[in-house]
Amino acid sequence: MNTNSSNMMALAPNTSKKRETVCIFGTGDFGRALGHKMIQCGYHVVYGSRSTQISNLIPKDAEVLSHAEAAQKAAIIIIAIQRQHYNFLTPLAEILHGKVVVDISNNLKLNQYPESNAEYLAQLLPGARVVKAFNTVSAWALQSGALDASRQVFVCGDDTEAKEMVMNIVRALGLTPLDQGSLLAAQEIENYPLQLFPMWKFPIFLSLGLTAFFFFYCLALDVIYTYIYEHNNFSFFIAMTIPNRICPVVALILLGLVYLPGVLAAIIQLYRGTKYRRFPDWLDKWMLCRKQLGLIALAFASLHAVFTLASPLRSFVKWRNAKPIISQALNNKTEPLDTTNAWLSDSYLALGIIGFFFFVLVGITSLPSVSNSVNWREFRFVQSKLGYLTLILCTAHTLVYGGKWFLSPSAYKWYLPNIYMLSLVVPCAVLVVKFVLIFPCVDKPLTRIRQGWERNPKSSEQSNYIINKSAV
Amino acid sequence: MNTNSSNMMALAPNTSKKRETVCIFGTGDFGRALGHKMIQCGYHVVYGSRSTQISNLIPKDAEVLSHAEAAQKAAIIIIAIQRQHYNFLTPLAEILHGKVVVDISNNLKLNQYPESNAEYLAQLLPGARVVKAFNTVSAWALQSGALDASRQVFVCGDDTEAKEMVMNIVRALGLTPLDQGSLLAAQEIENYPLQLFPMWKFPIFLSLGLTAFFFFYCLALDVIYTYIYEHNNFSFFIAMTIPNRICPVVALILLGLVYLPGVLAAIIQLYRGTKYRRFPDWLDKWMLCRKQLGLIALAFASLHAVFTLASPLRSFVKWRNAKPIISQALNNKTEPLDTTNAWLSDSYLALGIIGFFFFVLVGITSLPSVSNSVNWREFRFVQSKLGYLTLILCTAHTLVYGGKWFLSPSAYKWYLPNIYMLSLVVPCAVLVVKFVLIFPCVDKPLTRIRQGWERNPKSSEQSNYIINKSAV
Amino acid sequence: MNTNSSNMMALAPNTSKKRETVCIFGTGDFGRALGHKMIQCGYHVVYGSRSTQISNLIPKDAEVLSHAEAAQKAAIIIIAIQRQHYNFLTPLAEILHGKVVVDISNNLKLNQYPESNAEYLAQLLPGARVVKAFNTVSAWALQSGALDASRQVFVCGDDTEAKEMVMNIVRALGLTPLDQGSLLAAQEIENYPLQLFPMWKFPIFLSLGLTAFFFFYCLALDVIYTYIYEHNNFSFFIAMTIPNRICPVVALILLGLVYLPGVLAAIIQLYRGTKYRRFPDWLDKWMLCRKQLGLIALAFASLHAVFTLASPLRSFVKWRNAKPIISQALNNKTEPLDTTNAWLSDSYLALGIIGFFFFVLVGITSLPSVSNSVNWREFRFVQSKLGYLTLILCTAHTLVYGGKWFLSPSAYKWYLPNIYMLSLVVPCAVLVVKFVLIFPCVDKPLTRIRQGWERNPKSSEQSNYIINKSAV
Repeated sequence: MNTNSSNMMALAPNTSKKRETVCIFGTGDFGRALGHKMIQCGYHVVYGSRSTQISNLIPKDAEVLSHAEAAQKAAIIIIAIQRQHYNFLTPLAEILHGKVVVDISNNLKLNQYPESNAEYLAQLLPGARVVKAFNTVSAWALQSGALDASRQVFVCGDDTEAKEMVMNIVRALGLTPLDQGSLLAAQEIENYPLQLFPMWKFPIFLSLGLTAFFFFYCLALDVIYTYIYEHNNFSFFIAMTIPNRICPVVALILLGLVYLPGVLAAIIQLYRGTKYRRFPDWLDKWMLCRKQLGLIALAFASLHAVFTLASPLRSFVKWRNAKPIISQALNNKTEPLDTTNAWLSDSYLALGIIGFFFFVLVGITSLPSVSNSVNWREFRFVQSKLGYLTLILCTAHTLVYGGKWFLSPSAYKWYLPNIYMLSLVVPCAVLVVKFVLIFPCVDKPLTRIRQGWERNPKSSEQSNYIINKSAV
Repeated sequence: MNTNSSNMMALAPNTSKKRETVCIFGTGDFGRALGHKMIQCGYHVVYGSRSTQISNLIPKDAEVLSHAEAAQKAAIIIIAIQRQHYNFLTPLAEILHGKVVVDISNNLKLNQYPESNAEYLAQLLPGARVVKAFNTVSAWALQSGALDASRQVFVCGDDTEAKEMVMNIVRALGLTPLDQGSLLAAQEIENYPLQLFPMWKFPIFLSLGLTAFFFFYCLALDVIYTYIYEHNNFSFFIAMTIPNRICPVVALILLGLVYLPGVLAAIIQLYRGTKYRRFPDWLDKWMLCRKQLGLIALAFASLHAVFTLASPLRSFVKWRNAKPIISQALNNKTEPLDTTNAWLSDSYLALGIIGFFFFVLVGITSLPSVSNSVNWREFRFVQSKLGYLTLILCTAHTLVYGGKWFLSPSAYKWYLPNIYMLSLVVPCAVLVVKFVLIFPCVDKPLTRIRQGWERNPKSSEQSNYIINKSAV
Repeated sequence: MNTNSSNMMALAPNTSKKRETVCIFGTGDFGRALGHKMIQCGYHVVYGSRSTQISNLIPKDAEVLSHAEAAQKAAIIIIAIQRQHYNFLTPLAEILHGKVVVDISNNLKLNQYPESNAEYLAQLLPGARVVKAFNTVSAWALQSGALDASRQVFVCGDDTEAKEMVMNIVRALGLTPLDQGSLLAAQEIENYPLQLFPMWKFPIFLSLGLTAFFFFYCLALDVIYTYIYEHNNFSFFIAMTIPNRICPVVALILLGLVYLPGVLAAIIQLYRGTKYRRFPDWLDKWMLCRKQLGLIALAFASLHAVFTLASPLRSFVKWRNAKPIISQALNNKTEPLDTTNAWLSDSYLALGIIGFFFFVLVGITSLPSVSNSVNWREFRFVQSKLGYLTLILCTAHTLVYGGKWFLSPSAYKWYLPNIYMLSLVVPCAVLVVKFVLIFPCVDKPLTRIRQGWERNPKSSEQSNYIINKSAV
């Protein structure tokens, strides 16, 4: 077991000041970048290559040997070649026996192969201790000192000690290793760098769908209806008026959808009388993307705020505001202040501003660095208490803003309700059900269920331990 | 010492690919969630339970044994039971001798017991190596993959090696261990998850108190006075006008209070002629909550900004702006531009905007991830230099805005000053004293004192090493 | 080798519950603060001092001995004295042989000495294992519990094991060690705490320069020209009008300069036919400060947004808006809505708002904690795709805003173009070249070059491995 003793160099005391030797198979772009960085950090690097002729692209201080010779010199072998060439490693199985073999490969698309590259490598080399690592780092990130993108390196493997050795190298290169468990996690780690905001996909498509629907709804009611029946060409509403109608509506609906799954989960738990049964799949997925839904709602709310604040700059608004002033001047009279109107306009503005303020507060605590520095109780307080306060204020803002139109027949063009009425459906439903749920006669059994009590203990026959607890 | 050798599995080389065995006493919610996660991460888990009858809630791959049998199988025993049942552990003291015993309990309220649960456990089991850990993690956080809340696990204990073993488990579970020192820290760690923004309490109550005071002050002067003497019903001022008066006033006072303790500390140090004497307690506490005070001031300033920008949308403001236009039209004349007025209005707007801009900059550097990526000199530069610049700009904004009212008798309704004058007291005092402090004849001795020089070295008789250095 | 065995205390199993002994040379401010913190964390601290007379400033539980005696008691010696006194250590070279000697010193200015303090120490004590650490932590940060500034401790040294021992102490004190490689890195580590936003210097000076230039340009055209030829005193434009002209212009130019180096790099790579040759130095530096340029552009854009939104509050704008209304009233007619104008004004507002929205989004992903939680593909998507979208929207905003002035002779006062035309030069150039670069006939060879293909492989004769890859 000579190998083992040299393996432990990084941990065990030794007199040499040099770090251990690492072998890299493959002299491609990433293999060279990694080798270069390792040499900088004090490792001795040996490249295993088909041709041992030294290319001037390979770092100066590295050795280049045949694969077999290079592998014998090191306890850790990094495989910087593509999966389709892995089968050339089979003749080296003997030499690689007991060695730490690091798979750093990436695929071109998600789930390209039935098994992960690292598992495939482990099958080819049954005696080797395969570790998956480094695939999330780009050659550019390794090279450039000003490392803006992620420093996280996901590591997984079945051998704890081999994993520890690789994680020491990761740390030495100035990166942060994250242990992801056994080699089964390799599939997920290989998919990671190919992902493009997977948690955001559903919320973004949902909000784009809502936006498109309300755009055509508004276009029909505000532009086409006006053009047909009033012969006014308000096509320029497309630029500012309609976006500023869509944004608050989508924001309010999305905010309602953030709190709807929590309410549904409570109803399901109350109905079932236990928390030990898995929620329907759609509800689980919905719950996991609440943060993203909320942040998109915040984005729409911010756009609404800026659109509204910018409206006095619009030439249409200036023209509309001038009309009553000119007519007062022409009629030679000054209208007194309408106090009711002043109350209404000030109230919905104030409700909107304060609602938006709390919304931004909740959004700030979603920043990773902020949510990491609060404890669980504080996080729940902000996300749940302040979140509901935001929902209440924003719903009230909408109600006060448009209350006068509810009973006015002119608001029902083509017998369709104004979109702001549609926007109230989800948030009002959530608030009503939540209001019922906080009554003691409903809250008490729910709390007991969430603490583990079961109405019919026999009925819960789940095969595995599952906890279903809503974070709201 | 069989125990020791198995203890070191995680660190020492070994041929087995499985992590070590961990024993969990107690099969409650948290015990099951922890066991489940550990099995996922490759540990072998043995539950110690009163009844060894296997419940279907317990993770499938775990063993369930009696407490004594389970404890003998592992070097680390996690106590997932409540403090009031700890005394059942006394008969097991013999078996637990030399073992690492992990206390994960939480209390229901702050400082519930005279000693921490972990210290109590250490008294019950004198031979065991007690470590406090995992109490800050919720069962939900362990279970859910999308871990938004804190990943930090505070660890403390008197035995370094035992602590290191527990921290290795924490890392393996994908969490971040933070060593908090000896078991004396357990009290604080047990209080941590019960806290609800403890550093924020005083600043929030202070700002709420100021808000309430100024609300009634404004209500009296702007609504009630106007109603009594001018017979105008301006009750709708409550919604927008009064909040937009309170917000800037509270923001400016709080911003002044951020820089006041630094100035007081300098005066105290100059007076005493040494930095080696502890500041009064209230000053120490005040200094520690300056960041929170500043952030609340920023929140009020932001509200002020949005309230002001939204004011052209108010129907009252539209009515008020229309009046002079109509009267000009009726009188058949066009007033020329009042350049002085244009200068004044543009100046206070520009000062306010630039002051707010720097305020937001300082606020952004308070984000944990940003303040972690700057060095000490940069942090001080932003917090102190840019902070004072903000204070100067915001004070100037207020002075220019209301300068004309100082000498106008109509501003002193009921012989009370306008609230904007009250808001200037603290920031002006701070700026004047700070201005004196940067004179070389004052700055030089202060700098020498802060570098360790003492005017009367004999007089400093503190029993312990204390450094009092203001961060301003 | 007695030393070695005691060195390993932190890692190796031992029965004592106390951490190892650490020796500190020097009883100055920082030495005392560090010792105090170490005692808190369970270390035994021995001070080495010229006079062993115990001062009451030294922590109570620490021993104070002569330098030689103190050094013999510990395996780690922390040198808390200034560089100019290092030569007194030479007589102790024998005793310090094989010990871990930690250099924590800082200099007063950048690159004060030809070699770093740590390297100088290593020369004085050839047998000692010198490690650089702790110089980035302030005494105040060690002392205060509420640690807001950076917790990062940069560590470097030639001896891996010695470095690991020091990093364990760093971790035990609740700080985060960052291994920076060999002792060659000491110079950089010693310069770090003296730096004041080094990456920001060029972008800030550039933007200040642009601001100054455009200020005088505007002053001449808007104030002086108007005063001379139209006899209007518009000096108050200095407060709001001119800043709100400068801000968008500087923001747009800086945003163009963020994307210009990427475009230049592509042209250079296409021309050379290889990526394996180093870019000119100025281009490399420019590329490294793109993030800072972009954030300053965002700051100017935000100022522009707030200045614009605040403009209806200006008394000049109120006066200007009232004029046409009064003249309409006096002429007894109501002008109909000018639809073209409504379209134009709404379009540029909408383009500006949406452009600013995406700009803020890109800015948020520059926060360290956000950019750490996205993968490389997502980071590139946001910074490149969304960044270009921002540039296109902001350029379109400017074009639509001022399109009507291009052909109007009155816009060319003194034959000089309006500054908004100057602002379009850089962004339009970038967009045109980028548009050409995405044509397949240009994009294909570029992609192949970036994947490592070379047009004339012989021509690349670089001596060392260099990767030049633009992140755009």
